[in-house]
Amino acid sequence: MGSMKPEISESDYFMATDKKREMKSGHRLVGLEHNEVKVRGITFGGEGIVIIAGPCAVESREQLSETAILVKQNGASMLRGGAFKPRTSPYSFQGLAEDGLKLLKEISVKTGMPVVSEVMDTRHVELVASYVDMLQIGSRNMHNYPLLKEVGMSKKPVLLKRGMMATIEEFLYAAEYILVQGNNQIVLCERGIRTFENATRNTLDLSAVPVLKSRTGLPVIVDPSHGTGVRAVVPAMAKAAVAAGADGLLIEVHIKPEEALSDGYQSLNTEEFSELMKKLEQIALACDRCIFGK
Amino acid sequence: MGSMKPEISESDYFMATDKKREMKSGHRLVGLEHNEVKVRGITFGGEGIVIIAGPCAVESREQLSETAILVKQNGASMLRGGAFKPRTSPYSFQGLAEDGLKLLKEISVKTGMPVVSEVMDTRHVELVASYVDMLQIGSRNMHNYPLLKEVGMSKKPVLLKRGMMATIEEFLYAAEYILVQGNNQIVLCERGIRTFENATRNTLDLSAVPVLKSRTGLPVIVDPSHGTGVRAVVPAMAKAAVAAGADGLLIEVHIKPEEALSDGYQSLNTEEFSELMKKLEQIALACDRCIFGK
Amino acid sequence: MGSMKPEISESDYFMATDKKREMKSGHRLVGLEHNEVKVRGITFGGEGIVIIAGPCAVESREQLSETAILVKQNGASMLRGGAFKPRTSPYSFQGLAEDGLKLLKEISVKTGMPVVSEVMDTRHVELVASYVDMLQIGSRNMHNYPLLKEVGMSKKPVLLKRGMMATIEEFLYAAEYILVQGNNQIVLCERGIRTFENATRNTLDLSAVPVLKSRTGLPVIVDPSHGTGVRAVVPAMAKAAVAAGADGLLIEVHIKPEEALSDGYQSLNTEEFSELMKKLEQIALACDRCIFGK
Amino acid sequence: MGSMKPEISESDYFMATDKKREMKSGHRLVGLEHNEVKVRGITFGGEGIVIIAGPCAVESREQLSETAILVKQNGASMLRGGAFKPRTSPYSFQGLAEDGLKLLKEISVKTGMPVVSEVMDTRHVELVASYVDMLQIGSRNMHNYPLLKEVGMSKKPVLLKRGMMATIEEFLYAAEYILVQGNNQIVLCERGIRTFENATRNTLDLSAVPVLKSRTGLPVIVDPSHGTGVRAVVPAMAKAAVAAGADGLLIEVHIKPEEALSDGYQSLNTEEFSELMKKLEQIALACDRCIFGK
Repeated sequence: MGSMKPEISESDYFMATDKKREMKSGHRLVGLEHNEVKVRGITFGGEGIVIIAGPCAVESREQLSETAILVKQNGASMLRGGAFKPRTSPYSFQGLAEDGLKLLKEISVKTGMPVVSEVMDTRHVELVASYVDMLQIGSRNMHNYPLLKEVGMSKKPVLLKRGMMATIEEFLYAAEYILVQGNNQIVLCERGIRTFENATRNTLDLSAVPVLKSRTGLPVIVDPSHGTGVRAVVPAMAKAAVAAGADGLLIEVHIKPEEALSDGYQSLNTEEFSELMKKLEQIALACDRCIFGK
Repeated sequence: MGSMKPEISESDYFMATDKKREMKSGHRLVGLEHNEVKVRGITFGGEGIVIIAGPCAVESREQLSETAILVKQNGASMLRGGAFKPRTSPYSFQGLAEDGLKLLKEISVKTGMPVVSEVMDTRHVELVASYVDMLQIGSRNMHNYPLLKEVGMSKKPVLLKRGMMATIEEFLYAAEYILVQGNNQIVLCERGIRTFENATRNTLDLSAVPVLKSRTGLPVIVDPSHGTGVRAVVPAMAKAAVAAGADGLLIEVHIKPEEALSDGYQSLNTEEFSELMKKLEQIALACDRCIFGK
Repeated sequence: MGSMKPEISESDYFMATDKKREMKSGHRLVGLEHNEVKVRGITFGGEGIVIIAGPCAVESREQLSETAILVKQNGASMLRGGAFKPRTSPYSFQGLAEDGLKLLKEISVKTGMPVVSEVMDTRHVELVASYVDMLQIGSRNMHNYPLLKEVGMSKKPVLLKRGMMATIEEFLYAAEYILVQGNNQIVLCERGIRTFENATRNTLDLSAVPVLKSRTGLPVIVDPSHGTGVRAVVPAMAKAAVAAGADGLLIEVHIKPEEALSDGYQSLNTEEFSELMKKLEQIALACDRCIFGK
Repeated sequence: MGSMKPEISESDYFMATDKKREMKSGHRLVGLEHNEVKVRGITFGGEGIVIIAGPCAVESREQLSETAILVKQNGASMLRGGAFKPRTSPYSFQGLAEDGLKLLKEISVKTGMPVVSEVMDTRHVELVASYVDMLQIGSRNMHNYPLLKEVGMSKKPVLLKRGMMATIEEFLYAAEYILVQGNNQIVLCERGIRTFENATRNTLDLSAVPVLKSRTGLPVIVDPSHGTGVRAVVPAMAKAAVAAGADGLLIEVHIKPEEALSDGYQSLNTEEFSELMKKLEQIALACDRCIFGK
């Protein structure tokens, strides 16, 4: 027999792709009603654009304290810092774990800034929640459904990062996992998707901002640091994100990026951050908004 | 001032992309020495190509039992079946959980076939390990490092699926997370990667078979069911995988695919499976191999 | 014999990927010196952000004339309109060809606006060049090297669109094909890349703006219409592009988008365009720039 | 005003993506009737799997002649060789042009093997057609609609390569451009698509074989050389392609790959080719087929 001819109907093709199958199953959307998220005095989704800044990883008391003071001075409302780091290689620095959380808490009290940090393990949700003000679900865990359920049940505000290979649809469903537990304090974060292009670490998909905002009332922020992976490009993308309508930014800042234990090549130093904040204020104004807290 | 010119050195670009950064960090490879994996009398990585078959999800005793008997008759050595299902939507069938595990155990004893099932949560590793012979780490959990550490410590054989957006490098590092816990009983599974093409649910990357086999001594199998998501294409890809040098196949089979609670559109019915197995035997022989157990 | 082990050295992998091979071949970059492009009184690359607007395809004298007058009133400096349309299907409207070029010329004279239109065939370069002020190389022709050579030799200003699957590297090399013919009047245009995401037609890669501007002195503009394919998202991306540092925008406008013969679903109507232009002025000012011609 | 909310209806999203828009436009498919293609005594689409082999580029009489004789001895039915080479960089070897065509003709007569070579420019179709038996449309020109029309009108058999970023739908429409000119002598060629993975130059999408064969009666062959870009992986993929149901293979062979002027790192030397051909015969037999001409 010559050539092989399998029988595939057109609907098979459509049904086959996960994205479209989900489209048909209903319950697809989180509500469109405006849904502000409050974290200890900070409001996401209002007129003010919230700036979250800090180092990729908590490395020491001194490093964290210095960075926190500097970013706060320049207009950041919230501090970020990783205690549990998701590293591609088991040989890379994994984070200070609970010691890192303690430092975050300490600096949070000292500066008065709320903190957000990533939780990677269902068994650590309670622990991390006891130290921080907002739980971050990293890009690699957006599909970690047990973890989503757990943070949903914690009732703690959640910073949900888009999976690097997640469609907008899947991103909204991930938020749904948290919402069905009765927790609507979710901030969505676009942080770049994986594509064929290598000039940047990820391809920052800024269209996700208006697209998500047409589908959900949840606030949408942008991480231009992971989204590009290239320090020199971060300011341009931060500005573009504000102009695109983002409710906030998540920016990596390090007092000495060259010495950072992780992601140093994408962190801004404090001068660059300071300069960027000034530009962001102007652009926010031009968009009839302002920087939260300023 | 006219156009903006950020200063980006060439090395910034290279350093920025995660894939290349990992390349430079050493400890990249799992050993190249031939590393067979044994699961209750079954050997992965030898001359015999291991066929793992079964339904996507365990739905009932009858469904699982019927399917198990039929696939065994046709040459499958191992049974698959999901008790904990990772669903994009929280409203989709989530699996029978521990009840599903009990059924798997029961049918395993009844048919004498070892079973593999997915574990999604670090808190369930011990539980799932007590029922099954092999722990499956699903595609969405390849980057779930706490989970990788946990199954590494369990010393149970692991079926590690490639992340749908994971590079070969990241895939090998994920295996490394398990290996550093002293567990080298890892079978790698190519199951398709996400691309722009929608005619199939994923794009099955069969080159991963020879590429992986040049970098590691671990066995490499292929899942043509999730890899394509289109039933009519599964047989062709299963045959191609054998010709490409795969050490095994993971095939979804359902007695009544139209009534399946998940992924029915990619499951073969038992006739199609039976016919495919005959073809696979011939192709295996033409490649100087055989079907394990036959 | 058991498992197959091909011999692949690490350098093989690196050499294999086209992107990296090109990196090593030298002559990679177009010059970094600031390189303005002038098209009949319009300057790309200066302080003014050039707005090019018009319908996707020239459909009739009335349609083109009305649209041209309206976009000019609102601040556009240049008119776009396709006479030769690259359609995925041979059954779709292919464009008015030379009749379309004649209309473009007529309206150009009538409004005083320079025009840009796509040329798809090496045999038509001279013809199209006789009617328009700037030759557009479409995304699907960025790799059409004979065509690049031909427009290079024409010495006409060129609007070079990034291929939907072209890396930044390949994009710069495509410009190189034109430059080696002695034609440096090239404006680069980011118009979205193809990814797995389907919520938008392409994924607009705004990081291409700062990335390109760090590698070349050529002006860089953005097409938010093709870049997203969704009308409602175009304004946000146009604003983001300006904030990212783009030297211009290429925007599809149609007096009646629902009746457009091509790409109507991404065209702005004239009210939307008018409103967007006002916002763009404010954002340009906030970025220490202005809209060219205003 | 707080957050921005553009109005986007669901149908906008669907309409926006080019792939789905085409789905709705009718005339989508080339006929499903079995459509053999004959090239000077060779039949594509019958029981025999046609092997086309040769160097990437024609470099010299000696190189071409030696390679041609060797591949013919080992079972190749048709010779390939590029005279016009599409290079990413204008500084790379562009091919011997008409001199290369003359050599192809000469060796074709000498060995009795038909030849296929790429044509890149509408102005060269007649010229190239006067020297070769089959016109190749390269991956980068699959969207070059004027070129497709021209080869359609030439009535010469066409080897149409899938664009590296073309969907199956777009691929079939490209064939449609040729078919509407009354030329149904088209052989489709899967040659890898561009994805995020860098371990191989492209990701060879073997599922394209059964998928295409369910949508069209045209023969479908596979190019494992460009499809992987890694010599050591080519044999495995060639075998997999045969098992997947391919009607032929397009394999790069060079007498001294290390000295090749283009793509040497993916070319097999003549020993590797010889060994592969023996394996292919066995696999073809196991699939109830044979190698054409043997």
